[in-house]
Amino acid sequence: MSSQKIAVEIINIGDELLYGSIANTNAQWMSEYLSEAGFRVLRHMVIADEQEAIVQALQEAMQRAQVVLLTGGLGPTKDDVTKLALCRLFGTELRLYPEALAHLKEMFMLRGRSLSALNEQQAALPAGAIYLQNEKGTAPGIWMNDSAGRVVVAMPGVPHEMQHLMQEQVVPRLLKTFAVEPLLHFHVKTVGIGESQLAEQIATWEEALPAHIKLAYLPSFGQVKLRLTATGKDRTLLQEDIKEQLRRLLPLIDKYVFGFEQETLEEVVAALLRKSGKTIAVAESCTGGYLAHSFTKIPGSSAYFQGGVVTYSNRAKIDILGVLPSTLEKEGAVSEATVLQMATAVRARFRADIGLATSGIAGPGGGTTTKPVGTIWVAYADAEAAKAALYRLGNDRLFNIKVTTALLLDWLRKKLGGRAHEFEDFFV
Amino acid sequence: MSSQKIAVEIINIGDELLYGSIANTNAQWMSEYLSEAGFRVLRHMVIADEQEAIVQALQEAMQRAQVVLLTGGLGPTKDDVTKLALCRLFGTELRLYPEALAHLKEMFMLRGRSLSALNEQQAALPAGAIYLQNEKGTAPGIWMNDSAGRVVVAMPGVPHEMQHLMQEQVVPRLLKTFAVEPLLHFHVKTVGIGESQLAEQIATWEEALPAHIKLAYLPSFGQVKLRLTATGKDRTLLQEDIKEQLRRLLPLIDKYVFGFEQETLEEVVAALLRKSGKTIAVAESCTGGYLAHSFTKIPGSSAYFQGGVVTYSNRAKIDILGVLPSTLEKEGAVSEATVLQMATAVRARFRADIGLATSGIAGPGGGTTTKPVGTIWVAYADAEAAKAALYRLGNDRLFNIKVTTALLLDWLRKKLGGRAHEFEDFFV
Repeated sequence: MSSQKIAVEIINIGDELLYGSIANTNAQWMSEYLSEAGFRVLRHMVIADEQEAIVQALQEAMQRAQVVLLTGGLGPTKDDVTKLALCRLFGTELRLYPEALAHLKEMFMLRGRSLSALNEQQAALPAGAIYLQNEKGTAPGIWMNDSAGRVVVAMPGVPHEMQHLMQEQVVPRLLKTFAVEPLLHFHVKTVGIGESQLAEQIATWEEALPAHIKLAYLPSFGQVKLRLTATGKDRTLLQEDIKEQLRRLLPLIDKYVFGFEQETLEEVVAALLRKSGKTIAVAESCTGGYLAHSFTKIPGSSAYFQGGVVTYSNRAKIDILGVLPSTLEKEGAVSEATVLQMATAVRARFRADIGLATSGIAGPGGGTTTKPVGTIWVAYADAEAAKAALYRLGNDRLFNIKVTTALLLDWLRKKLGGRAHEFEDFFV
Repeated sequence: MSSQKIAVEIINIGDELLYGSIANTNAQWMSEYLSEAGFRVLRHMVIADEQEAIVQALQEAMQRAQVVLLTGGLGPTKDDVTKLALCRLFGTELRLYPEALAHLKEMFMLRGRSLSALNEQQAALPAGAIYLQNEKGTAPGIWMNDSAGRVVVAMPGVPHEMQHLMQEQVVPRLLKTFAVEPLLHFHVKTVGIGESQLAEQIATWEEALPAHIKLAYLPSFGQVKLRLTATGKDRTLLQEDIKEQLRRLLPLIDKYVFGFEQETLEEVVAALLRKSGKTIAVAESCTGGYLAHSFTKIPGSSAYFQGGVVTYSNRAKIDILGVLPSTLEKEGAVSEATVLQMATAVRARFRADIGLATSGIAGPGGGTTTKPVGTIWVAYADAEAAKAALYRLGNDRLFNIKVTTALLLDWLRKKLGGRAHEFEDFFV
């Protein structure tokens, strides 16, 4: 195969998309993932859960693209007709795949449930298909080839199952099947600076970028991801070009960069904590458990995360953490004095090396003239001292919870000595 | 025209959609708005900003649908080729529309800017088109009819401009052009039962559904949403038909139904807590803060949520909650005895009416032969008693955290007396 860009079309099956009940986030995720892998997404189609519509859309897509990826319509219930449409298109019939059945039985056993006849149907695939094992659910991925070398893959529509199959099975197999033109992405992940402020800070550098390197800003909850994309024929040269640009870029935004590529802020902080040998505990008011969750969602966090308290009421702040009633009365729950006491106390109560605390007005209600919604105090305490900081955020409750968590994790990251890795480690 | 369902296709033009930089929220909004107005959305297509692709997609769509709505590609910059594609398709040419030019001049004057030659091009539309005035921006809507009575409408891709045109111009004009049949959706939300088990439980009912009512299963993290869709001539009759089906369906799955339509499990539980006047506190191990977050993300939760502890280590379970060291030694942290003590203790510590607790092996590591990953104990304690339950879930950490939270919230819901609303309340 030539090294031209391979064309992919995406077909998402689901009446709920056509009714507008949900947005098509699967198409977005797949497009981004495929673009980054060097494929060209030609078209998205959303169609109904109907055999005729699926067959028609597949036929059209296969006239334009070498690869067609479908999601949806693979569950055990009656409204799932994707497999029958594949059989019609490829002139084949459903056949029981023993490895699919074995996996299905294992998954049901793990959950302590028995397999019904309806469930067993999930192990029947169009004869000739390659079975792609789904470790996150019961509907498998189905890979089919036609005589012209085109590929059709059907996946379940549940986002985390589709993503797992794309990452572990579909895209690796596509990269083996087709020669994809080198395209190199590199992600620089920042926190604590807004998109437009960041753009101003790196404007001169951005204007001087060579034509074959493009830059994109991808913002979310207190973070901005910068994506550098280089295109060309020689992968090694592209790597050198990207490294050269990173050497110029990073000094300009050093204090906002927490990681690279797929690293998350939670993972970077987890790695730093593990390396430091220090333990941590958190006292939350406005973040309400989300800060603790951002530690405990990382596998193995029990090695350093001692625990936390969510002291939502004043009484709990007094009873559980020993915050002084006089402080709450004079300064209020959302105050520097209160978060400092919370961080110090939770550190002591959990016998941890580090204590973190949050107290603020997450909204949408509860604001006052002096303390409007979005007024949030946070604190960090260790054996040496306790310090507090004030954030002024927005009106959206979930936004405030998530941004506060990100900014406080970033403070912890800096206290633990900054980045875990150098960018060169990502080029190997 | 007959009162059959009018088929609509939506074409969204934009490279940023194909790169996955943004989700296609325009298609979602348009689909929901059109469905509620009684149209049937047949397909979404997302295509590139290229004349050839636009012409091809329009031709395909017009073979299937009576109405084709396009967004994007109408700005003054050079990548906007929608109008040229329309000219090609309808065999016509661009012509200056005086009323479009007058509106453009007025908009520029209001903004204190003068009109450039590039801007003036926005007043040129395909000859024969009906000009739809856009009060929110400079790109107009363009309405075209073909000889077979089919309608093509092009709109700008900026969401609030498109929405304004849809509401004020496009849909009112469509309703005048076509006789539209009513369509009614109703959502039943369940928790604690899998998709296939649910399907078996209601199989007889589902098979007896009349032809004009359809059913879909929409699963996510321990929950399954059932969507009933009725089509017919008379809106009032359709409401009665849906109610009749609900009266038959609900007794079959009564204990799994937590709400209707847009209600979330968290909101239903919040409303029940508020109504009960009871307060609550949570002690978490494996859910690590996520259970607390599921309460505190609801605005106003401080009225009943006293707080929680995340006792991740054994030491924290002993120090903070007073779990007996002998229990942890003999039974382990993941045991009935431990969660019972946790739930009872957190209730007392926070002086709450109800205490909840979780302790399990979220994974992916930490499993043993007798307690594999996914083994999760939960407990509920109130003034009368404390009770525990065992869940056997999967291997995925985040899945286990979210499903445990959903199942425990559902237990609380039942303890608080079940549903907040009757389904009849949703038909007004």
